[in-house]
This record gives sequence, C-alpha cells and structure tokens, in this order.
Amino acid sequence: MRIEVITTGTELLLGSTMNTHGAFFGQELMKMGLRVQRQLTVPDGEAIHSALKDSLTSSDVIIVTGGLGPTSDDLTREACADVLGLDLILDEAALRSMKAFFQSREKPMGDVNKKQAYAPIGCDVLQNPNGTAPGVYVPPRQGGGCAIFLLPGPPRELYPMFHEEVVPRLKALSGVEVIPDVLEMKFVGVGESELQEGIDAQLEAIEGFEHGYCARMGECDLRLIGDAGQLAQARDIALQKYGKYFVNDQGQPLEQTLVETLAAHHLTLTTVESCTGGLIASRITDVPGSSAVFTHGYVTYANQAKVEMVGVSQADLDEHGAVSEQVARQMAEGALERSGSDLAIAVTGIAGPDGGSAEKPTGTVFMAFARKGQPTEVKHECHPRNRKDFKTAVAQAVLSKVLRHVTGR
Amino acid sequence: MRIEVITTGTELLLGSTMNTHGAFFGQELMKMGLRVQRQLTVPDGEAIHSALKDSLTSSDVIIVTGGLGPTSDDLTREACADVLGLDLILDEAALRSMKAFFQSREKPMGDVNKKQAYAPIGCDVLQNPNGTAPGVYVPPRQGGGCAIFLLPGPPRELYPMFHEEVVPRLKALSGVEVIPDVLEMKFVGVGESELQEGIDAQLEAIEGFEHGYCARMGECDLRLIGDAGQLAQARDIALQKYGKYFVNDQGQPLEQTLVETLAAHHLTLTTVESCTGGLIASRITDVPGSSAVFTHGYVTYANQAKVEMVGVSQADLDEHGAVSEQVARQMAEGALERSGSDLAIAVTGIAGPDGGSAEKPTGTVFMAFARKGQPTEVKHECHPRNRKDFKTAVAQAVLSKVLRHVTGR
Repeated sequence: MRIEVITTGTELLLGSTMNTHGAFFGQELMKMGLRVQRQLTVPDGEAIHSALKDSLTSSDVIIVTGGLGPTSDDLTREACADVLGLDLILDEAALRSMKAFFQSREKPMGDVNKKQAYAPIGCDVLQNPNGTAPGVYVPPRQGGGCAIFLLPGPPRELYPMFHEEVVPRLKALSGVEVIPDVLEMKFVGVGESELQEGIDAQLEAIEGFEHGYCARMGECDLRLIGDAGQLAQARDIALQKYGKYFVNDQGQPLEQTLVETLAAHHLTLTTVESCTGGLIASRITDVPGSSAVFTHGYVTYANQAKVEMVGVSQADLDEHGAVSEQVARQMAEGALERSGSDLAIAVTGIAGPDGGSAEKPTGTVFMAFARKGQPTEVKHECHPRNRKDFKTAVAQAVLSKVLRHVTGR
Repeated sequence: MRIEVITTGTELLLGSTMNTHGAFFGQELMKMGLRVQRQLTVPDGEAIHSALKDSLTSSDVIIVTGGLGPTSDDLTREACADVLGLDLILDEAALRSMKAFFQSREKPMGDVNKKQAYAPIGCDVLQNPNGTAPGVYVPPRQGGGCAIFLLPGPPRELYPMFHEEVVPRLKALSGVEVIPDVLEMKFVGVGESELQEGIDAQLEAIEGFEHGYCARMGECDLRLIGDAGQLAQARDIALQKYGKYFVNDQGQPLEQTLVETLAAHHLTLTTVESCTGGLIASRITDVPGSSAVFTHGYVTYANQAKVEMVGVSQADLDEHGAVSEQVARQMAEGALERSGSDLAIAVTGIAGPDGGSAEKPTGTVFMAFARKGQPTEVKHECHPRNRKDFKTAVAQAVLSKVLRHVTGR
C-alpha cells in the first residue's frame, strides 16, 4: 500500500516549528507493518491543491495534516473537494459537536468556524473531541481509488484522531489481519555501528522480518518487527552478544527502567552532581513513582558546596582539585551517609567550554558509585563534547552504571 | 526565487530519526530573506531520481541532503548526474581530501569510499572537513536553469558546509545585496494569541517588513525581519506593550539571559526543588559561566530531605503538607541561609499523575522567592499538564520570576 503524507503549514517551512508529524506517522504506521513512501510539506494556502493532485496519481492512501481551521488560509477541505470534483455539504452532526465544544468552554462560536463543519459529499466526518476542526475521511470510491484522510495539525488533536479514526480504517484498507509485533530494544554503552556489525548478518537471516537501528546521544535503539517467534529469536541474538548493555525492550527511557528496577529491589539512590548540575536528578524525577527510590539530591556546584553539603575535605579539594578521584569518592560517600540512601552516585568534571587544562581537558569527568558496606568505585572518562551533550553523556553513563550494578550485569 | 528542499533517508520516513533539516533550512534561508516553497522527504535508493526530476520543473534552487555516502543505497550523486544527462568524473582534489581525512583518523580508506570523490562534469565539489562525503554544487548552466546543491545528511557535516559553501552561492544567485537583519524576541509569561492580538496590526502596518510567531512550552518567540529602522520600530511596538515579559532579542534560552543578568548584578542564586527534581538547577548549569552565579542546589524530594537539607519544620510539614505556602517559604529561606546565596527560589508541587486531591489537584505548585533582607514572596499556580510539561512550565515560571525581579520589571 503506497502511503503519502502531506503536512501543511507555513511555520514548518519557515522553521519556526519542527515537523514532528513525519516521525509520528512513520512510527505509528510501522507498528501496522505499513510505510510512508513520501512525505511532502507545503505552505498554508493554495499549495495543498497541486500537492493533492500529484499524490492522487502516485499513492493508495494520502494523509494530510493541517489547514482545517477557520481562517482564510485554511484550504485543505476546499482543495480536496475541488481536486476530486465533489461538492462540500454541511454535516449537521459536526456542527452540533462544534457548538457543544464551544459551549463547554463558555466561549461563543464564531461564524468563521461554521465552514469547519463542511465535508465533501459521501465522505466521513471524523470527530475531534480535542478541538474545533473535525477531520475528513474520503473513501476510495470517492477519492478516485485513493483513500484520503484530512486531519488537524495540532498534535493533541491529531494523535487521538489518528488512533481512534484512522488506524481502524487503515487496517481495513490494507487487509492486514495480523499486525506484526514490535520490540524496541534500548542499549546503552554500545554504539550503533558496533551493534550493527555484531548482529546485523544474523538478523538479516531471519526470513520475512524487519529491523532497524536508531542512534541517539549515548544510546541506541534496535527496532524489531515481526511475529512472536521471530521477535523472540531476534531478541535472543541481540541479548546473547549485547545483553550487558540492554536496558528494556519497550523503548522506554533509561531512567524509567532504572527507577522500576530500584523499586523492585527496594533500593534508594541519591545523587551528588557537580558538572551535570541537577540533570541526573531531573531525569530520575521525570519518572512517575520516582519518590519511592529517590529522596535527596545534591547539586554541589561550587567547592564550598561540596564541603558544606556532603562533607568533602577542604584539604583534598586544595590538593587534588574538585575534578579528581578523591573528591568524587568523598562526594558519593558523604551523600550516602547524609541521605541515608542505599546507593549514591557522584559526578565531578569539566563541562567546558572553559576550565580545561592539559592534564584535565574539557570533557574530563570522575564518576563515583557508593553502596553501603561495599568499597566505592570511581571511574574516569572523557567526553569532549559541547556542554549540553557532555551533561547528557555523563548522565547516561551514570544511570546505566547503576542499572548494571543492580541487575548484576 | 523558488527553493525546494529534498531530504533523503529511510530513517526519516520510518520515524526513527526526526527530520530537523526542514526547520534548519527554513530558519537559515529566512535570515537571507529567502523561503522554502516545498519540502519533500524520500527514502534512500531510487526515489531521489523522480523527486529531482519533479523539482527541476518547479524550482530555481534545489537543496538535497543525504545519499552521498559510500553504500549501495547512496544514490543522490548518480541520480543527479543521470537526471541532468551529465557524466560523473573523478575529482582528484576531493579524493586527496578524503584520503587525508582517513589518514588523520588512522583508518584505512575503503574502496567503496572512492565513489564519493565523483561529481557531475562542470560542477563544483564542496569540501567536507567534517566527514568523508564531499558535497556537490550544480550551477544553473549545468542544471537546466536550476541550481542544485547536494549536501551530506549528518548535521555536524551539513551545517558547516551550508554556511561555508551554500550561503555565498545563494546570495550570488538571489542577487540579494542587503541581507535583512533578524531579531528573535523571546517572551515568557504571555501566550502567542495574546501577543499576536496585541501587536499584530501595528506590525503588519510596517511596510516591506516580515514577522512571525513561534510558541513553545511556556514561551513565545517573535521573529522580526527587515532593515535596521524597521527592526527598531517593531521592537519598540512589542516592548511598549509586552516589555514586562521580554527576555532577549537574540533567541537565546531564558536561563542564559538569567545567568548573564545575575552576573551583571553580582548576584548569586540557589535552588530548592521538590516537584521539578533538579530541572531548574540543570537549566541554569546548561549556561557556560553559570558557576559565577550558582553554587548550591538542593533537590529535596522527600519530606525528610526538606527537613534535613534546608531546615523545614517537621510540624509545618505535618500540619500543612509538603505542598503548601508554609513549606515553600521555609525551603527558600532555609536554602538562602545555608547556601549564603543572595537569592533563593523554592518549588513544591504535585507533578502527577498520582498524588493529587480535590483541594490540591495534580499540577498544583507553590513557588517561593527569597532575598536577603526582604520579605519572601510565595505564589500559588496550577499547571495541570503531563509530568514533564509540568516541570518545564514550573521552571519557566520560576526562572522568569527571578529575571523580572533582578531587572525590576
């Protein structure tokens, strides 16, 4: 099934808004075993007209976003009717829903909004409980053999409508009975090229099975698509070689897996951050339920804070410097004691752009890991990147270190 | 000048990689007074062939990214030569550069890489100091009246090449002599629609001048494009009405302006975070030089941490709860005293999804602001959003509160 996506919106071409719809549709369709063959972005206004005309000849399904609003620039509905030679008629139910939407928000409905309740004759109006613009479904018999979805642009309106209204129709159209399963295996600590080199040939050998890699700062996802047997086989291949780096197979963030794992082991963790400045604590507390495993976080940015907040020795700061094994160790051990947590991690490093030296260049970091009753481990790494990437890389390294410790990998 | 952008890459259509090139080109071209009329994404392989053919008839400039690599799926160079009926010839200088690139990394250059040194006859090879794939510039006389740029896909290779090689050629092609200036005015605390309603008519009235809005979580940018006189006029219009919410006019993050402002006033700030869990500290420390204004950060996630780290009274915690005016106030005042900073901000709230009640629903937050020798201010707000958006909204509110205090707005 040839699927094309047309996103409309001048802001997308001006670059003031990132076009995230392309990735959304790609990911959602892939879960159904479908692919986008082409994605086109055009400005508001007349351009949708020729874009639709072009796509009609080259695709079986067209998904359009945007241009369903009330203003004079919103022409998707009109262009679609025009290209197909269909009349627009008022949908009374859609009009009632829109009126109810405005009433529930105690706002008057403008006359301009009325045009949003029109749809090409013989088409379905798609309910939009999250906004004023209903969507439109043009079935193939009305679309010259091509099925067309007109959907609103704002994600909070688009995503629910896609799941409620588009997915069931696409399943029916594509005749896919068994939707393939998807696993998103996340790995931290191994690069995309190493992962690919290590397992790609074996995965390629699985018949009728798809896989792909997606590298991000400090992690790599392996996406597996197939039936249950193929997924189990592929998962085993990946885990056999790279199990040490495995985080989860549901595409969840590293911090979520860490929080769940700590909770399952009834362990608490404290953080002492210099160079990451609170990023590690923030990522942990992004996870719902993190209060079960995280109670105290220290951002000891200045030397004095390292002394006052977690009891680092001033003499060692003077002798070894803030970015040193000794200080990292004392930060972790001091926080462990003061917070009463079971585990502590501490980081001290040089995020740059200034502050580096020949001996300790920008990117240098010491990471300490302390656990009650066990010797503290300190690791030295160098991540010569820009400041924000440095923070991210250090946070990844620390969070995955704790995860590996707790899971015994 | 009609400009089209073609981004190639299967990963963009699968959704595993976000297409950020569209926004990059939109923003960069806008600075030169140019616009993208259409942006198309096609998969790796043959699809670039018909995409180029289509765009040749409808544009004056085509910018293509990706498909210049060494693998069999990288066909942009070959497709371009084929569509234009030009032979590919080896560029000796490009080959030497590539060899030098591999040598500098002490890696052998594979035979497959050699194809990257080919370019259509009569075209310019564009140096790529950041990767192996040189770019290609097809001048209009070779491109059937259309100028074509073939550029590498990875941002760290693409961005420098765009600035070094593409911008000067585009300026020459477009005959633009005076590149308009751009101001990116950032506002925090006023919504896009209010901003637009308040000043749009006045801005529209400035002759030959362009402007646009871009809303993000908790802030709105106003982009102004014109000559120096027009910019000054537009800036005044915006400041007159919304000066209170103004952050900077260079599109920098709020935290950068805050750090620079604090430094200029020789003030230090400490943070005590419960519901934001370190996010505010992390944003402050994203800014180079933040150590001049930020020394201590407290992440007091548990009640016990509020007592131990910043001296909140257990009795008040018991009586009023952790999410209360009393506790927020004590957090800020305790941190002010313990850190020795000039200013302190504290936040305590309910990030959700659980933990809300009828009296204090999810999204409730108390924000306290303390300054030596001044009465502490506490503000109560509600941001009923998802967990991460809630954290972002609270951080925005707090950082802008401090900025307004210091600048006296």
